[in-house]
Amino acid sequence: MSTTDLERDIARIASAARECARALTKTTNQARNEALRKIAARIRECAPDILAENAKDLVAAEQDGLSSAMVDRLFLDDARLGAVADAVAEIAELPDLIGRLERAETRPNGLQVARMRIPLGVILMIYESRPNVTADAAALCLKAGNAVILRGGSEAFHSNRAIGRAVAAGLEQAGLNPRSVQVVGNTERESIELLLHHDKEIDLVIPRGGEGLIRFVAQESRIPVVQHYKGVCHVYVDVKADLDMALAIAENAKVQRPGVCNACETVLVHADVAAQFVPRLCARYAECGVEIHGDERVRELGGEAIIPATEGDWSTEYLDLTVAIRVVADLAAAVAHIEQYGSDHTEAIVTADAAAAERFLNEIQSSTVVVNASTRFADGGELGLGAEVGISTTKLHAYGPMGAEGLTTTKFVVRGTGQIRT
Amino acid sequence: MSTTDLERDIARIASAARECARALTKTTNQARNEALRKIAARIRECAPDILAENAKDLVAAEQDGLSSAMVDRLFLDDARLGAVADAVAEIAELPDLIGRLERAETRPNGLQVARMRIPLGVILMIYESRPNVTADAAALCLKAGNAVILRGGSEAFHSNRAIGRAVAAGLEQAGLNPRSVQVVGNTERESIELLLHHDKEIDLVIPRGGEGLIRFVAQESRIPVVQHYKGVCHVYVDVKADLDMALAIAENAKVQRPGVCNACETVLVHADVAAQFVPRLCARYAECGVEIHGDERVRELGGEAIIPATEGDWSTEYLDLTVAIRVVADLAAAVAHIEQYGSDHTEAIVTADAAAAERFLNEIQSSTVVVNASTRFADGGELGLGAEVGISTTKLHAYGPMGAEGLTTTKFVVRGTGQIRT
Repeated sequence: MSTTDLERDIARIASAARECARALTKTTNQARNEALRKIAARIRECAPDILAENAKDLVAAEQDGLSSAMVDRLFLDDARLGAVADAVAEIAELPDLIGRLERAETRPNGLQVARMRIPLGVILMIYESRPNVTADAAALCLKAGNAVILRGGSEAFHSNRAIGRAVAAGLEQAGLNPRSVQVVGNTERESIELLLHHDKEIDLVIPRGGEGLIRFVAQESRIPVVQHYKGVCHVYVDVKADLDMALAIAENAKVQRPGVCNACETVLVHADVAAQFVPRLCARYAECGVEIHGDERVRELGGEAIIPATEGDWSTEYLDLTVAIRVVADLAAAVAHIEQYGSDHTEAIVTADAAAAERFLNEIQSSTVVVNASTRFADGGELGLGAEVGISTTKLHAYGPMGAEGLTTTKFVVRGTGQIRT
Repeated sequence: MSTTDLERDIARIASAARECARALTKTTNQARNEALRKIAARIRECAPDILAENAKDLVAAEQDGLSSAMVDRLFLDDARLGAVADAVAEIAELPDLIGRLERAETRPNGLQVARMRIPLGVILMIYESRPNVTADAAALCLKAGNAVILRGGSEAFHSNRAIGRAVAAGLEQAGLNPRSVQVVGNTERESIELLLHHDKEIDLVIPRGGEGLIRFVAQESRIPVVQHYKGVCHVYVDVKADLDMALAIAENAKVQRPGVCNACETVLVHADVAAQFVPRLCARYAECGVEIHGDERVRELGGEAIIPATEGDWSTEYLDLTVAIRVVADLAAAVAHIEQYGSDHTEAIVTADAAAAERFLNEIQSSTVVVNASTRFADGGELGLGAEVGISTTKLHAYGPMGAEGLTTTKFVVRGTGQIRT
């Protein structure tokens, strides 16, 4: 496809999305929920087609020598596809957002002022590997009344197209424009660049993938980008911690699924419990096969096997069975460490001291702050959003796990009886 | 000042702001409100100094041949400065935002999840002429717990510096870091460019001024920008309108203060009341000295003096005693006109038909939608925000008039009893 053809193709996609977004502002929540139910049903019906297309991607992945982790993310079977359809059906049943009036008040001149929740317009998702994102993102965007452009990676090309066909069929059955959800067929990087220049048609870009992809999008985009660079999450074990609880949380946060962004990368331990806690923590991590990088005090307490931590360790997202441990003087030092090295993702404190918990909750400015629980709960589903389209570590426009509400904004609605301004 | 000195100076400002923002996250609402009261008092005490400095700007403005409207925006006297101090004192008394918990719920596993309102961090305001913005923006940013960098125009250089000194003195008296509010002394355009590259230290840019300034900032910035390009606001007179009310609203929206963004630029009239209403509307506007650009039907009904409207008229922000009038077939045509030519600022419908009002409120996606009142109410003060830092016509991160709440975000706070994820 020549550049000119590609440019024209992308321009058509962008302008169709804008048109569908306008039409969606005139649909009811009921109509969009019904479309979600039909989409879920079509995904189930189209399972043989989707799985056959998925098999093509898997063959190509093997030929290209993708890692087994990557292949696992691509892989679909009846059970996984059933879960994808279930997720879409569940989003249909979440509380409706669009048209909801918030904080109504009557002004002294009698004007009734409220905020009404409305869609953002057109969302562009740019993502890698997992074909379930195609269905999840489509469903969350539709729930929030948005049109969406889905630009997945080449490794999931056939799977994404097949899911896209099922989504389009569901939309059509429900009487909505099938182009409300568009799967971009072109998987060259150039198609991303071209999309990012359509700032008149697209309202928000959400990249999901490696740091390289996200930096590329942030740099090229003329459209606002919800960014999520990395998760350098911390567990701070306070002087008043229940140390058994601290051990269980530190283990779970690191070990239960080390390859995800809400896994813990650094454990901070209050100096006054270090002698008691650090040897137990190091032993537990050793049992779990976790490599430990520790500061001098941790090495004194934890043994010679511990690798000396370098300055770089404190800001590293290992995404693996590796952890950094540091002893800090007190809560203030823990907060200062997190301010300096953290990534605004998720931090947890373990403490039985209510005042320390409140101070940590107030002073830490990360998008999710946790008391006495694992960092692994920083997830849209776990926090009650139903599902998530991503996790923002920038404070604009959303901060933390983003569900359907993160894909909306509010307008002011004002009802008068003829008021004029004097 | 050589480029290198300027670069160093701007870098120092940005890094001091970041440091102050961190310190502000550890202050209480009471402490910041007390600082606002002290700032108001210092502005009153420093009135002789501020007015003397303002006089210098006025002399320069006259020498540079600034328009009388520009000079009027610059001009301060005891009464105007008193109003500036009052506005700061009133912001101290607005409800507190920071630390407020919203939508608390308990998850099935016992986790208590809520959103806590937090500051954005560092705000950069870039603005022209009005020195009152210096005090207003400083006060709103502090209320919301943010550090702020104020980069005003050269025409208000002395006034802004003098107000900045009063603000710094108030902060110091209240025990807060005076650099929490910094007035940039350098007024070359280059200082804007340099500031806009400090995306690590600055969280949000709010430009206020002409379209040229805003486009320049949006293009240069690596930091998210709240944009407000222009206000092409509409009044739609429905078939079921009370025509006396419609006349009063159309007059007020256009004439009461034509030079501001929430003034009406286009009146749309339902075809079935055009013969009755258009002649009265044209006569009223003629009395008020308003130049009318009308479509063919308006010229038939309103007389030969009416200038034929061109396609360009429908998207023009006149900011003057000029109005465009068009007859439309029905409400759907009015909505379609606004979608095509509007600026997402403010639109009003005049109607006695509740169903038509609801349809207009739902379908129009502008940041403020009004029923039976003047577009001139689209203003932070009038809508109950206390004061405003600007009006956003982009849906991210805020939409419509932005007060202190528009300068905040929320983080998730999670309280557990040892929960781990399985």
